[in-house]
Amino acid sequence: MYPESINDLIESFKLLPGIGERTAERLAFSILDMDPDNVEFFANNLVKLQNNIKHCSICNCLTESTVCNICSNTARNNKVLCVVDDVKSIFLFEKMGMFQGLYHVLDGLISPLDGINPEDIGLEKLLKRIQDNDYEEIIFAFKPSVEGETTALYIKKLLDDTKIKITRLASGVPMGADIEYLDSLTLERALNDRKEVA
Amino acid sequence: MYPESINDLIESFKLLPGIGERTAERLAFSILDMDPDNVEFFANNLVKLQNNIKHCSICNCLTESTVCNICSNTARNNKVLCVVDDVKSIFLFEKMGMFQGLYHVLDGLISPLDGINPEDIGLEKLLKRIQDNDYEEIIFAFKPSVEGETTALYIKKLLDDTKIKITRLASGVPMGADIEYLDSLTLERALNDRKEVA
Repeated sequence: MYPESINDLIESFKLLPGIGERTAERLAFSILDMDPDNVEFFANNLVKLQNNIKHCSICNCLTESTVCNICSNTARNNKVLCVVDDVKSIFLFEKMGMFQGLYHVLDGLISPLDGINPEDIGLEKLLKRIQDNDYEEIIFAFKPSVEGETTALYIKKLLDDTKIKITRLASGVPMGADIEYLDSLTLERALNDRKEVA
Repeated sequence: MYPESINDLIESFKLLPGIGERTAERLAFSILDMDPDNVEFFANNLVKLQNNIKHCSICNCLTESTVCNICSNTARNNKVLCVVDDVKSIFLFEKMGMFQGLYHVLDGLISPLDGINPEDIGLEKLLKRIQDNDYEEIIFAFKPSVEGETTALYIKKLLDDTKIKITRLASGVPMGADIEYLDSLTLERALNDRKEVA
């Protein structure tokens, strides 16, 4: 029904997550009215992204250099390592801005049911990094799920003969949440981990 | 905070209507995981669009040829002309699939308050087209607003000395709408235009 160029662009937008037919049509039409310079900027950035972005050779974070800005920043606290299972977590931590340590990105979480075993998530690189450095604390920032707990426990076991303090993010009631809408698991964790009112 | 290539792509997505910071970030990250062929397809389609799409020399609809598929389709009813104020309306009509006539796209609606006068919306081309053809009916499919009514009345006046039947889309209660949530203007129009139950 649409001219081919419009159709093709609608199909392209539909490749994006959460973009349905209607939104794809709206976005494609908006491109028609956009400043041609901006359209070219957009198209170039799309192509540029996959070419330019690689994984940091130390922590696996996304970067355009061999070593990312965080690993190469000598002002950071190199005694604390935060292990995440998704690179996006790093950017959330950085947005929050209160963490001064370093990061390490695993290639997912151990999940035997999905066929993801310990050797599949890049643990060797993490262990080598821990061995080669002098970390005082390792923080697991995995999602609070069976896979997250499994992975945390597995790595903790591997580090049992070290003196490194091993911690995980607190689980509990999210700020601003209504207790009445909380799932039982979260409530249970929040109850078990309760803190004395200071 | 993000590497430059990711930042640039996030900024690009934010140029699109209705795409905020959070969604732009999500979309940019999804490009990282996308099949490179699809990313190239996407980028090419962005650039291709503005180069390939032009306005039909007869009706102003979007097309890749000089004359659009609808104007060049001899199976359509060339006695009925539907005048719209936005090219997207044509695609909605075509999706609906029940209209067999031809279209004409005006360059907006008369709106003296916004400085848009009759000479600004391409009326000359429409009048010439009406003169050169033998239309039996002209349907105005403008949005039911002050501007829509003004434009319809203005054109009707210009065609007063012809025998062409001039109609507008029915206004009234949208199908499936709750009467209780209707605005007064729509309700008034629906009441005035009420039809005998057949």
